[in-house]
Amino acid sequence: MSDDGALFDKGLPIRRSVLGSDYVDRSLGSADDFMMGIQRAATAWGWGWAWGDPALDRRTRSMINLAMLTALGRPHELKLHVKGALNNGITVEEIKAALLHATAYCGIPAGLDAFKAAHEVLVKEGAIPAKE
Amino acid sequence: MSDDGALFDKGLPIRRSVLGSDYVDRSLGSADDFMMGIQRAATAWGWGWAWGDPALDRRTRSMINLAMLTALGRPHELKLHVKGALNNGITVEEIKAALLHATAYCGIPAGLDAFKAAHEVLVKEGAIPAKE
Amino acid sequence: MSDDGALFDKGLPIRRSVLGSDYVDRSLGSADDFMMGIQRAATAWGWGWAWGDPALDRRTRSMINLAMLTALGRPHELKLHVKGALNNGITVEEIKAALLHATAYCGIPAGLDAFKAAHEVLVKEGAIPAKE
Amino acid sequence: MSDDGALFDKGLPIRRSVLGSDYVDRSLGSADDFMMGIQRAATAWGWGWAWGDPALDRRTRSMINLAMLTALGRPHELKLHVKGALNNGITVEEIKAALLHATAYCGIPAGLDAFKAAHEVLVKEGAIPAKE
Amino acid sequence: MSDDGALFDKGLPIRRSVLGSDYVDRSLGSADDFMMGIQRAATAWGWGWAWGDPALDRRTRSMINLAMLTALGRPHELKLHVKGALNNGITVEEIKAALLHATAYCGIPAGLDAFKAAHEVLVKEGAIPAKE
Amino acid sequence: MSDDGALFDKGLPIRRSVLGSDYVDRSLGSADDFMMGIQRAATAWGWGWAWGDPALDRRTRSMINLAMLTALGRPHELKLHVKGALNNGITVEEIKAALLHATAYCGIPAGLDAFKAAHEVLVKEGAIPAKE
Repeated sequence: MSDDGALFDKGLPIRRSVLGSDYVDRSLGSADDFMMGIQRAATAWGWGWAWGDPALDRRTRSMINLAMLTALGRPHELKLHVKGALNNGITVEEIKAALLHATAYCGIPAGLDAFKAAHEVLVKEGAIPAKE
Repeated sequence: MSDDGALFDKGLPIRRSVLGSDYVDRSLGSADDFMMGIQRAATAWGWGWAWGDPALDRRTRSMINLAMLTALGRPHELKLHVKGALNNGITVEEIKAALLHATAYCGIPAGLDAFKAAHEVLVKEGAIPAKE
Repeated sequence: MSDDGALFDKGLPIRRSVLGSDYVDRSLGSADDFMMGIQRAATAWGWGWAWGDPALDRRTRSMINLAMLTALGRPHELKLHVKGALNNGITVEEIKAALLHATAYCGIPAGLDAFKAAHEVLVKEGAIPAKE
Repeated sequence: MSDDGALFDKGLPIRRSVLGSDYVDRSLGSADDFMMGIQRAATAWGWGWAWGDPALDRRTRSMINLAMLTALGRPHELKLHVKGALNNGITVEEIKAALLHATAYCGIPAGLDAFKAAHEVLVKEGAIPAKE
Repeated sequence: MSDDGALFDKGLPIRRSVLGSDYVDRSLGSADDFMMGIQRAATAWGWGWAWGDPALDRRTRSMINLAMLTALGRPHELKLHVKGALNNGITVEEIKAALLHATAYCGIPAGLDAFKAAHEVLVKEGAIPAKE
Repeated sequence: MSDDGALFDKGLPIRRSVLGSDYVDRSLGSADDFMMGIQRAATAWGWGWAWGDPALDRRTRSMINLAMLTALGRPHELKLHVKGALNNGITVEEIKAALLHATAYCGIPAGLDAFKAAHEVLVKEGAIPAKE
């Protein structure tokens, strides 16, 4: 798995730009040899190969991910991409609408889990106020 | 998403009656505008539209949900419906049998996760004694 | 996998009674050594172990299966259990209500696929008239 | 399930406009009482409630659906929404990019099945030429 | 998505060797520009990057795929890998045991669908005799 | 569900041998009547029936489980089988390769969740050093 170097190099700045340099530096910096396996895969294939394709803009990819990760039932990854959506200029209203759209297609329990995960990030990032 | 008012009003008392007024009041009371999106959806579609249809009794819907949520891999929602099953008069023996039935169809790891989630609720609700 | 003989013997008459002797005889009769692997497993674990447990009646197990197989996305197995549901005395109205209930929890595409599969069986079995 | 009339009426013209009047007329016209259960649900919940919410434009909802239905493993529904995507002005290049994006998140077998389903529709609709 | 050339070149002979040159030539030869998107992805990522990694032998990867594709519910891809398993020297008895193992973890309906898909290939390839 | 005694007795020593006697004793010892339902099922069906079949060796079953549990999205069960894989003589390099293989088939979010779960066990078991 040594032939993905060009895609890794292409993906790294895109990943930083969408998820934030702090998060990416922490993920790569804390990774031992075992975890570097998936870090390289995610950066090369997810960010270099998929996100690096100019055929879709970042805003559209973020919108897609909100609903697709709801369907896949992956709350950890969904949280990262809620933050990425904010960085890509998507509003809280649009995130809410994407998750409601996904609820109709994935069912209510999937929707509830996605809303809870997204809400946690939105409050932490200051995009919606913490309730007193 | 403003046309679901009648279904929301129909679903709210059913939801209270199955999941408990305390839980429902807390969920709605703590919901900000973002979370009200899914709270309305769940109440209108899940409780008003599905549970509000008299073609199946509540006991049957509870039995279905125990196995269906095992299949969907949604432990948070499963826990709510274990409590709902108790409120609908389903016994611990029947909950156990429904989850074993689901294990044959969904596989052992799905069964193990469902049993753990259900057990936590059953002990908390006093339906089975906490082990010393 | 030779220790499941008692469960196989217990499950076979239950399977016949729910799915019909014709279907079961055909499945077992046409099975070569390879397919007997899963035929034995399904009969012993599904029918002897799960359905053979008296803690839930057959009607309840049928209702559960309609929704659970919708969640699992298994149209072939769902069709068998729609026929089984009819044999267990469940009405077309109840099958419809169970699949609508499942649609709220599993999403609209899962619901559409389940309705189509169930409809095919209901027409074939004469439970609803074929449209002219 | 009689309280969803307003959402059904709101959803019907949107569904016609995205999926084509011919398809929708055929679906509703051929539906007996059993199938009308899911036809009403899909129209009211999917089209009236989700698509009818102006917070996201149709183009974005189409893009989301291509990837989300790949994740859900629902080829029949995906095919409908490939046609809908064309009707909403999405290009073949964008459909391809959305499915490749989904492949990175859902895995190669999900991607292969989605490409095959989409390809069938694109050729049938004349959006890409049939190979000689 | 132009940076995966080295992995495509690495993956192509492995894919040919496991799935058969005839099948691979047909897949690539019949692919238009749209389908080449996923053909390149599958060859580069699946065959060059994953199968091309010497840390696991082909036999082990075939065994893994039989159970993993049962879990994912992808019968088309499973069929390809049943043929690949035969090419990699795996016996019919071992394929049967892998699918029974998967049945315990994925549930009976997943097992039934996998056995049917595998059986079709095994008969077609002459690995088990067609029943008269 | 009383006819699975022979399989339970056959499975128990295999389960102990793969997952460790301490873990198994704790699971069975802490189980009340409710939890014994799934403990018996897992031991009889998973360990007696599946693992007890000599047609596949334990090493192969461990390799299969790493990828299959990634596909199923069951991190708790995956953790147990990472420990089991170590007990069955599988190296950290092989575990890494199996999870990368699974990532290509199940998608990047499934891969990330599996790597995190596996990493936690590998550090706890001392198979890879904790990072300072």
